[in-house]
Amino acid sequence: MRFLSFHCEYFKYMATKRSRSKVYEELTDDNKEYKLENAIVLFISVERQDEDKPDFIQNSIREIEKIINQLKVSNIVILSFAHLFGQLSSPEFGLQSLKKLTYLLRKKGFTVIRPPFGWFNELEMKAKGHPLSRISRII
Amino acid sequence: MRFLSFHCEYFKYMATKRSRSKVYEELTDDNKEYKLENAIVLFISVERQDEDKPDFIQNSIREIEKIINQLKVSNIVILSFAHLFGQLSSPEFGLQSLKKLTYLLRKKGFTVIRPPFGWFNELEMKAKGHPLSRISRII
Repeated sequence: MRFLSFHCEYFKYMATKRSRSKVYEELTDDNKEYKLENAIVLFISVERQDEDKPDFIQNSIREIEKIINQLKVSNIVILSFAHLFGQLSSPEFGLQSLKKLTYLLRKKGFTVIRPPFGWFNELEMKAKGHPLSRISRII
Repeated sequence: MRFLSFHCEYFKYMATKRSRSKVYEELTDDNKEYKLENAIVLFISVERQDEDKPDFIQNSIREIEKIINQLKVSNIVILSFAHLFGQLSSPEFGLQSLKKLTYLLRKKGFTVIRPPFGWFNELEMKAKGHPLSRISRII
C-alpha cells in the first residue's frame, strides 16, 4: 500500500460517473457527496504485493496514527487512487482492504469518510501549507 | 520526470513559509499567490535520472500537450512536488528544469503559472470528475 496525505482545511467530494472498474459500490444518499473539515485526505493505492502481506493494514494504521497525532486531527478521508505509480492489487482486494481500513479506524474513534469505490469524483479541497501538510508513505 | 495531473475548474495557491530546501526563489507581489481557472495542475518531480537525459523536457512537453489537447485547456500549473515516490534530482537541477519547461510551454502560447520553488503553499482547488481528470505519467 502507498498513500499520499494532504492536511486539509476542508475536503468535499461528489461522485459523478462510473469508472471503468467492474467492481463498484452503489450510490446512496449517504455516500454520493460529503464535506469534512480539518481532515487528512489519504489518496491510497492498494498494491499487488499487499495481497501476500497479511499485516499491511495494521502497519498502515500505525503510520496513519503517527500522522494524525502530529497534526492533531481526527477526521480522515480514505480515497482510492490509482495514480501513485505502483502496481495495483485486484479491485476486489482493493475495495475489501479499504473497507477494513475504514472499519478499524472508525473503531478507534476517528471520523472516516470513504467515497464510493468505482466512481469518478469531483473533489474540492483546501490544503494547508505547513511542513507536514503533504506526506507520502509506502507501507 | 514524473507527474500527476489534475484537471481543475480552479486552482489557487498562496506561498506560506520556506521549505527546508537551500535552493529557493524570492517571493514577490507577482508570484506569492495566484488563481487560475480551467487548468491542468501538474504535480511534478524532476528525478535523479533526468540529469542524464537531455531530451526529458521535450518528451514531457509532448505528453503534456497530448493531455491539453484532449482536455481542450490552455492553462497550466507547474507545481514542484517531492511526494511521488521517485528519487529526486538535485534541487538546482529541479528548479532549472521547471523554469525551462515553463518557458517552453509559454513560448507555445499556453498560460503557465509556477509557484515559487522552495516554499510551502496553501492550495485550494476543485478537480473535475471525468475519466481524464486524473492522469499520471513517467517520462
